[in-house]
Amino acid sequence: MNPIAFWTKSLLGVFCVCVGLAAAPFLAEASADREKLLTEPGVYGTFALFSLGDTWTKQDQATRISQLTLLKGVVEQHREKIAIDLYLLRGLSDQADLMFRVHAAELRDTQQFLVDLQNSPFGKYLKGAGLMHGLTKKANYVPGFPDQLKADLKVVSEPGSKPYAVVIPVTKSADWWALDQDKRAAMMQEHTEATLPYLKTVKRKLYHSSGLDDLDFITYFETSKLEDFHGLILSLEKVKEFQYTRQFGHPTLIGTIKSLDEMIEALAQ
Amino acid sequence: MNPIAFWTKSLLGVFCVCVGLAAAPFLAEASADREKLLTEPGVYGTFALFSLGDTWTKQDQATRISQLTLLKGVVEQHREKIAIDLYLLRGLSDQADLMFRVHAAELRDTQQFLVDLQNSPFGKYLKGAGLMHGLTKKANYVPGFPDQLKADLKVVSEPGSKPYAVVIPVTKSADWWALDQDKRAAMMQEHTEATLPYLKTVKRKLYHSSGLDDLDFITYFETSKLEDFHGLILSLEKVKEFQYTRQFGHPTLIGTIKSLDEMIEALAQ
Amino acid sequence: MNPIAFWTKSLLGVFCVCVGLAAAPFLAEASADREKLLTEPGVYGTFALFSLGDTWTKQDQATRISQLTLLKGVVEQHREKIAIDLYLLRGLSDQADLMFRVHAAELRDTQQFLVDLQNSPFGKYLKGAGLMHGLTKKANYVPGFPDQLKADLKVVSEPGSKPYAVVIPVTKSADWWALDQDKRAAMMQEHTEATLPYLKTVKRKLYHSSGLDDLDFITYFETSKLEDFHGLILSLEKVKEFQYTRQFGHPTLIGTIKSLDEMIEALAQ
Amino acid sequence: MNPIAFWTKSLLGVFCVCVGLAAAPFLAEASADREKLLTEPGVYGTFALFSLGDTWTKQDQATRISQLTLLKGVVEQHREKIAIDLYLLRGLSDQADLMFRVHAAELRDTQQFLVDLQNSPFGKYLKGAGLMHGLTKKANYVPGFPDQLKADLKVVSEPGSKPYAVVIPVTKSADWWALDQDKRAAMMQEHTEATLPYLKTVKRKLYHSSGLDDLDFITYFETSKLEDFHGLILSLEKVKEFQYTRQFGHPTLIGTIKSLDEMIEALAQ
Amino acid sequence: MNPIAFWTKSLLGVFCVCVGLAAAPFLAEASADREKLLTEPGVYGTFALFSLGDTWTKQDQATRISQLTLLKGVVEQHREKIAIDLYLLRGLSDQADLMFRVHAAELRDTQQFLVDLQNSPFGKYLKGAGLMHGLTKKANYVPGFPDQLKADLKVVSEPGSKPYAVVIPVTKSADWWALDQDKRAAMMQEHTEATLPYLKTVKRKLYHSSGLDDLDFITYFETSKLEDFHGLILSLEKVKEFQYTRQFGHPTLIGTIKSLDEMIEALAQ
Repeated sequence: MNPIAFWTKSLLGVFCVCVGLAAAPFLAEASADREKLLTEPGVYGTFALFSLGDTWTKQDQATRISQLTLLKGVVEQHREKIAIDLYLLRGLSDQADLMFRVHAAELRDTQQFLVDLQNSPFGKYLKGAGLMHGLTKKANYVPGFPDQLKADLKVVSEPGSKPYAVVIPVTKSADWWALDQDKRAAMMQEHTEATLPYLKTVKRKLYHSSGLDDLDFITYFETSKLEDFHGLILSLEKVKEFQYTRQFGHPTLIGTIKSLDEMIEALAQ
Repeated sequence: MNPIAFWTKSLLGVFCVCVGLAAAPFLAEASADREKLLTEPGVYGTFALFSLGDTWTKQDQATRISQLTLLKGVVEQHREKIAIDLYLLRGLSDQADLMFRVHAAELRDTQQFLVDLQNSPFGKYLKGAGLMHGLTKKANYVPGFPDQLKADLKVVSEPGSKPYAVVIPVTKSADWWALDQDKRAAMMQEHTEATLPYLKTVKRKLYHSSGLDDLDFITYFETSKLEDFHGLILSLEKVKEFQYTRQFGHPTLIGTIKSLDEMIEALAQ
Repeated sequence: MNPIAFWTKSLLGVFCVCVGLAAAPFLAEASADREKLLTEPGVYGTFALFSLGDTWTKQDQATRISQLTLLKGVVEQHREKIAIDLYLLRGLSDQADLMFRVHAAELRDTQQFLVDLQNSPFGKYLKGAGLMHGLTKKANYVPGFPDQLKADLKVVSEPGSKPYAVVIPVTKSADWWALDQDKRAAMMQEHTEATLPYLKTVKRKLYHSSGLDDLDFITYFETSKLEDFHGLILSLEKVKEFQYTRQFGHPTLIGTIKSLDEMIEALAQ
Repeated sequence: MNPIAFWTKSLLGVFCVCVGLAAAPFLAEASADREKLLTEPGVYGTFALFSLGDTWTKQDQATRISQLTLLKGVVEQHREKIAIDLYLLRGLSDQADLMFRVHAAELRDTQQFLVDLQNSPFGKYLKGAGLMHGLTKKANYVPGFPDQLKADLKVVSEPGSKPYAVVIPVTKSADWWALDQDKRAAMMQEHTEATLPYLKTVKRKLYHSSGLDDLDFITYFETSKLEDFHGLILSLEKVKEFQYTRQFGHPTLIGTIKSLDEMIEALAQ
Repeated sequence: MNPIAFWTKSLLGVFCVCVGLAAAPFLAEASADREKLLTEPGVYGTFALFSLGDTWTKQDQATRISQLTLLKGVVEQHREKIAIDLYLLRGLSDQADLMFRVHAAELRDTQQFLVDLQNSPFGKYLKGAGLMHGLTKKANYVPGFPDQLKADLKVVSEPGSKPYAVVIPVTKSADWWALDQDKRAAMMQEHTEATLPYLKTVKRKLYHSSGLDDLDFITYFETSKLEDFHGLILSLEKVKEFQYTRQFGHPTLIGTIKSLDEMIEALAQ
């Protein structure tokens, strides 16, 4: 670690303590809501992508740190209503440098957060690079699956951190939607069976987008083993349902999951 | 609310009162025309999208407020001839930050407003991000629908504000236009029946675009329940007519409806 | 009219008189050629699209007016060899702010004008936003049409100005070109019959582009009734020949026709 | 000609004389190689497109002329190994302002020239707008053509300058490559017969690109009669082989051929 | 060589010696890992494309050299964990000026290098122009090939440097993945047989991308004979498997392989 990086770390450490003292109470309060937002149906998930403008790194480090402190304030201020996750895409995806995943009961609350973010001193360096919205819903096809498959799906994910996140937007063809529910259910069962070998090492979450964006679904993955994730996708490309997929990725977004403090440290350098 | 936001609000309050006094007479006069423009056939509807340039937020707040006051003047000046609605897209759509929906008897009047807007001090910060035009027409297929369906369509929308607006441009395939009127009518009846469960919570308006833009239709929606709107779109994807749709969205525009004063307040921050 | 606009108008008036005195002789001379260029076959038509850079409106008005005076000089200087028409697209098309339509016996003359335009002080604010070329040719299918249809096509356009112009580029599929001449002629007859109800209110002109650009045709329309124009396009989408159309629009360009003086006035504001 | 243009011309005249004196010897030497590079198989042809940045014309003319003098030096320096042709696209193509066509025995030599060009003072104003590479090869299908067709192909091009150049990149479908050689040869014979009426007025040259770029072929044309060239392309769209063409143009590049001195004069204005 | 280039060379020579002294030990250590990363399965390969911003060449040469020295530091610092190769694309590809190929056991290590690169003084002039990831895997189809073909594939590459590198991203159609393994294996055998004549002069390496990017494969080639490489691609376009290829290139990236010192010298000029 070079001296400048070390100095940043110390400075951020001090600053984190200060903010931490004040923020602690409502952070605890917020986490109950966060749990609900991240697990229940009927919640809107937004993926907001940003590029960092050229001028960001041209500022001196002290200015950047003071602006990131204000970013922290904006995030904390909205954490009561919405759940915010951060991802560093720079170096892994060319579409954007940062991604915010926001869960909210109302899209208006997400909009308010993103408007406040862009109005903040740090936000002035962010350039919007994409926005996708989806809705969490109760499982559509699972209730009709055989009992054995339902049981297999209850496998517990391997413990330990999953540093990588991948987002793949999906659109189905008009032919898919024209199929009756039975035919779609049969194909989704084959699709689901193909995922079984990867349940332990790849976590998945599904968002329904029709009408909220130019997508039908946003699929979100977390893993510590990208080779397993690659195997999962390869298996999914081979099932019949894939032939009804019109858009898969474009963009595929790949990044690493960061806490707010880790992200601030990464951006301060 | 932080002190700066509070100060803005007060300042805007004062300013609104002043302008309000002068503007009141012809605003009242204009509203009769506005009602006609928003309900009658033979009216041109334009959706004008703008991004706010980077330099906007770099100005101090007093300058921004004085420029927004002049924006208000431009809007008021044109309200005699055209009906103007505003939408905040920032934070919900990545194509643009603001959307103006303009209804006019002649597209020239809309052009004059948009040219004046871009020539105004505030307009210099706007970057055009899209323009779509359509024409309101008498219902094409409804007169041939069964009486029961006609009656069902007369359901009254639920009272209360509908904060969200969604715009979805649509193009049909050449195969659609080659079908005879009867076949198209039968499919449009199935399409219309699919919308019945959503009539109360999702308001719709249709614009015909062929030749006025690279679209066949602009579909416009207002709702307070985006989950219902998602359900509506999902239903429409499943009817046969959807297979003749070549473009649906791209872009799907989603935003919140704002009065001029609400928009000015949002932009002043 | 606000005082500044009034002052501009006066200033331009004075300036127009001065230039007008000098320019009058060869303008009269030029108009004979202009008539030929606009009506004869074997003439190259170029549609040149430009956006106005951000910095244009940031200059003070006197500077803008002096630069527009020089623009006038560039246009006059080339009017001997080429016919130049101007269109204001801003507020109606998002691809560009201005369009020049240039007719010339040789594309080199058009190139020289456009190079001189971009080298002029005003030209430095223009950003190229598209270039399309086509060639006027004798009617290909009309000579084989039934006499009644030929007679119907001779309908005189309604008198009065036609303020709106629309440009729609067209590419046919490889299947179209592979059809023998008879089959294409039969479909073009159906196409032409569909246009009859609109001959009086919509003027049309056709340019052949194959090899000169990535298009097969540029179709150009003038009308005072955009609703009629919309009806015309809708009719053309329903004939069989439309199924052999691979590109229709993309972009559709819509604007208002301006004399050079009207355009200068619009740009000076 | 206005006084400034006249002054430029004089200045360039003087400057050309000076450079000409020094450059004459190796220019003569180079022309032998140039002839070989332009006629033999196994030579790499590169089409390099550039736009002129906004700042170029904002410099005063003396600075521009001194930078163009250095451009001349860069071109002369590489003329021993490679053959360089220049084209002015501005005013005729919207993709770029300038095009360099470079023939070389090794692509590395072309790369070195283009890197040196971009590092030169003039090069700093150039923005890359496209690069296409192809290889000249012995005729693939001609040896199998009937003797009469082979004789017809030997028609001598009409004398006189051919000021226009057009570049059309071409990609064939996978179905084309899957055809056996006999079927492709038969279709190429029909293709070739369609070109006979245009041999005298339109010169053609073919480059093979598969693997060197996202193209299968680059087709290059020179003509003084663009109407004939349009006729040629129209004929080629009607033969069966055209149905196996996936990309034709996109971009179609059209420009005027310039000597280095003519180009320098055009850019100095 | 002009005097300035000569001076640069000397300066870089001196600087290389200095850095070389310190860097030697761990460079030797690193090379063992490098060999493993470049030959073993289960390694992630990243192709990172960058354009050089306009401002880079506007700095004086001494500043550029000092920044390139720091670039050298960033590269050396990461060479323990990852293998880095450099390519000059400028003058041969229009998508980017530079390409880094990075092999790593974990994509996080590649991300850390690229983030550090962009945070370095030189990195501030780099603009991301593309990122592709793939995974090396054991040969999928080769084990089932006939013994003769397996033996043919063991041909030793011709000695001598291979200055050119080409990267072609590939996506297969949904129909390809729906084929059973036997049918795919038969087609891949035909594909492999088509490559035999080119084994000596064209080196190949395959990366599997499904899920890691919007691609299925990244194919990488090195050669000293681009004409042979063109022949190879032409042969591959003619086998049946090519009909199942949805994306081939777009972009095709072509460049010359450079050592770090050669690249620094090229950028310092």
